[in-house]
Amino acid sequence: MTLKVIAFDADDTLFVNETYFLETEEKFCGLMSDYLSQHEISQELFKVEIANLKIYGYGIKAYILSMIEAAMKISNNTIPIEVIEKIIEYGKELLEKPIELLDGVEETLQALHGKYKLVVATKGDLLDQRRKLHNSGLGKYFHHIEVMSDKQEKDYSDLLKRLEIQPEEFFMIGNSLKSDVLPVLAIGGHAVHIPFHTTWAHEVIDYKVEHENFNTLEKMIDVLKRLQ
Amino acid sequence: MTLKVIAFDADDTLFVNETYFLETEEKFCGLMSDYLSQHEISQELFKVEIANLKIYGYGIKAYILSMIEAAMKISNNTIPIEVIEKIIEYGKELLEKPIELLDGVEETLQALHGKYKLVVATKGDLLDQRRKLHNSGLGKYFHHIEVMSDKQEKDYSDLLKRLEIQPEEFFMIGNSLKSDVLPVLAIGGHAVHIPFHTTWAHEVIDYKVEHENFNTLEKMIDVLKRLQ
Repeated sequence: MTLKVIAFDADDTLFVNETYFLETEEKFCGLMSDYLSQHEISQELFKVEIANLKIYGYGIKAYILSMIEAAMKISNNTIPIEVIEKIIEYGKELLEKPIELLDGVEETLQALHGKYKLVVATKGDLLDQRRKLHNSGLGKYFHHIEVMSDKQEKDYSDLLKRLEIQPEEFFMIGNSLKSDVLPVLAIGGHAVHIPFHTTWAHEVIDYKVEHENFNTLEKMIDVLKRLQ
Repeated sequence: MTLKVIAFDADDTLFVNETYFLETEEKFCGLMSDYLSQHEISQELFKVEIANLKIYGYGIKAYILSMIEAAMKISNNTIPIEVIEKIIEYGKELLEKPIELLDGVEETLQALHGKYKLVVATKGDLLDQRRKLHNSGLGKYFHHIEVMSDKQEKDYSDLLKRLEIQPEEFFMIGNSLKSDVLPVLAIGGHAVHIPFHTTWAHEVIDYKVEHENFNTLEKMIDVLKRLQ
């Protein structure tokens, strides 16, 4: 294996993310509790998010807009304007959450830095991801951030073209089998899955992945052994 | 001059953009006309946009969120929820505007393609810019899209590092003196200004730029002469 580039997913791979989304969603359900049960509100929000994905893409700003739209839909436009104000406030709080690095991330990056070109490959907002990398102190380990509009095979092929490398020189590390692993294996790259304890419904797949270029690892630091 | 990379700003350099924002802003002012004059509404919206820039960044989603916030602020939270619904509708329309290429853009790209590495360097949303390049048919001329969280000197230095080139090998073309020209000249690159008939207030500077690495051109096609 002659690797050149190791790409890291950001959210829930380098630092906590889904946990904060879930907290925000819980607060959103609290705001809407006069209208539906928590489960029904979450379902309605998810439907709006998926319907908006093509036009808004991923990231927190898209999420705020979908919460507003869901609030209007769920309440049949009877929601008080103060609730919209609250949603925007929660959204801004989400954008400013402290950075919580996942276990072993810094040690792993330190050990790999200088040996490979390290990049971040993410579907999130550039501004938001850059802020997190800067505030976390991880920025210095990475050559750059690749913001991908989606993480399908075509997006990874474009990424390799941009990086001017072959698939077998590419190694992807992430918490989503659907986004970080399957498309990378499909185009001939290497991938490692490091599960996070919660996964957004949109990213869940329900079968087992087996492939010679693939491993599931429990912790980021295990990547070092995998690369030896 | 041994150029390697020519970078094009996207909005109002390759295709019409500010015109559509102004149309949307006019509709927004129409929605809010019970509260303030058009000029005052525009001013309030601009204030909210600038206050949100650090947290939301650039792009249409940020603009939609700022319109919603401005509507609540201007009306002192008395705005009917249907107005919020309208704002989101106008925002989605803005995201789906047809692509209108500026004069000579395609001919210029065709002539430069293969001779230099052509990239798009933009502050907008990646998803939105990718959609425009794809729908305009211009995608095939570009090596890739660089989404920049801002266009200050530091952002261009990062860009050159990422592209692995020297400043004198970099040539930037755009409609904003503030964002596309001044920072590029400051770090030793080349820049061309092609004015668009309207400029967002945030991008306006009120002095004359003179520099040996700089020209103002009337039309995109004049770039070809400039590069001979």
